[in-house]
Amino acid sequence: MPNPTAAMLVIGDGILSGRTRDANAHHLAGELSRVGVDLREIRVVPDDHAVIVDALDALRERYTYVFTSGGIGPTHDDITADAVAAAFGVGIEVRDDARALLEEAMARRGVTVTAEQLRMARVPDGATLIANSRSGAPGFTIGNVHVMAGVPSIFIAMLDALLPTLATGTPLRSREVRFEVGESRVSAQLRELAERLPDVSIGSYPFSDGDIRGTNVVVRATAEEQLAEAVARLEEIRARVSG
Amino acid sequence: MPNPTAAMLVIGDGILSGRTRDANAHHLAGELSRVGVDLREIRVVPDDHAVIVDALDALRERYTYVFTSGGIGPTHDDITADAVAAAFGVGIEVRDDARALLEEAMARRGVTVTAEQLRMARVPDGATLIANSRSGAPGFTIGNVHVMAGVPSIFIAMLDALLPTLATGTPLRSREVRFEVGESRVSAQLRELAERLPDVSIGSYPFSDGDIRGTNVVVRATAEEQLAEAVARLEEIRARVSG
Repeated sequence: MPNPTAAMLVIGDGILSGRTRDANAHHLAGELSRVGVDLREIRVVPDDHAVIVDALDALRERYTYVFTSGGIGPTHDDITADAVAAAFGVGIEVRDDARALLEEAMARRGVTVTAEQLRMARVPDGATLIANSRSGAPGFTIGNVHVMAGVPSIFIAMLDALLPTLATGTPLRSREVRFEVGESRVSAQLRELAERLPDVSIGSYPFSDGDIRGTNVVVRATAEEQLAEAVARLEEIRARVSG
Repeated sequence: MPNPTAAMLVIGDGILSGRTRDANAHHLAGELSRVGVDLREIRVVPDDHAVIVDALDALRERYTYVFTSGGIGPTHDDITADAVAAAFGVGIEVRDDARALLEEAMARRGVTVTAEQLRMARVPDGATLIANSRSGAPGFTIGNVHVMAGVPSIFIAMLDALLPTLATGTPLRSREVRFEVGESRVSAQLRELAERLPDVSIGSYPFSDGDIRGTNVVVRATAEEQLAEAVARLEEIRARVSG
């Protein structure tokens, strides 16, 4: 059976303006690789209701899962939950279970929940909460869309809570072979190898290391024997081109 | 006149698999902010011909400019130039001017161009080259699509060569005010300020700094006087909430 597929939707003006460097997409990509979910697309969009709704609709139709980050805090530019409710055509209001989580977290800090903070307990009708160890404001799942925070430490905690609950697939194994020659010196052989081993994905990544112009070749496959064959062939190629 | 708009299309399996962390989107976002082009969307897609063509078609219709990075090297997984040619419905072949740039660069290294390297001189019909100081393999522009390398140092050099040739707009100026209170303590005031100053974009970014939970508020506008007013109001709010 093929692996489940996924897209990530990163929401926030700060990333598009160059103020903030997104870190969540890279973290998600690594985690999904590890559990055998194929991340097929990442989109970054601004804090704009209509744009978020359109992107959600496009992505949730196309992929098994959609993961979002950003826009679920207490301020006026946090509009993700409303956009998700609109995309699913459901209502949104403060929910007792979300409010309880928020109140517990605030009580641990010795404060009470303000009216503004209560906005973070607004959850689309029919959603399931993603509780987590870092924040009293939960993420949530509705349909195949998983809505998480933009703050990296909270995103990581939410994903840790969420991932074990999802159906996953067969992780791709990968190996890397380092060539101390430029990409053009191995590209014909890599092309041939890719044709010969259609179930192995072969990627090449040029690098500079002092005076050395080299190429890291990454092979990825689900089956160990295919991977071992690919690595053996790459080592033969390396012996030839370095000779 | 409104600023030109832009999208970035990042092409490469390596980013979606978690192997590589993209750095080009953040660099582009900062540069476009600086010159007054509004970056509205970033998409990351795999090395898949049909997916790249679809994304190009969606983005080039919608935005003034599309910037791509990745997939223009000499190996079998470098398929961006072909996908761009297909999206524009034009042919693609090795072009004399691109070949000349490549040959000059290789001559400087004391080597000759191989058949595989010559793939990098394949350019869609009607494209203009983006020569650059870092690589003999040029990027290119066709229509409103600007095709650049994935290797960050080469992407930066290509963008440096390209940006001065484009029509740009009015840069947004920005200022940042640091609040040493959590977002919820200022969110009502920020919402009110955002309604009062509709031409100023107000973003809030929570941070933790040791024991301090704080909020950086970033205001952005084209006009200096609007920005100054926003900052003055923020300082009033800060005096109140810190009191």
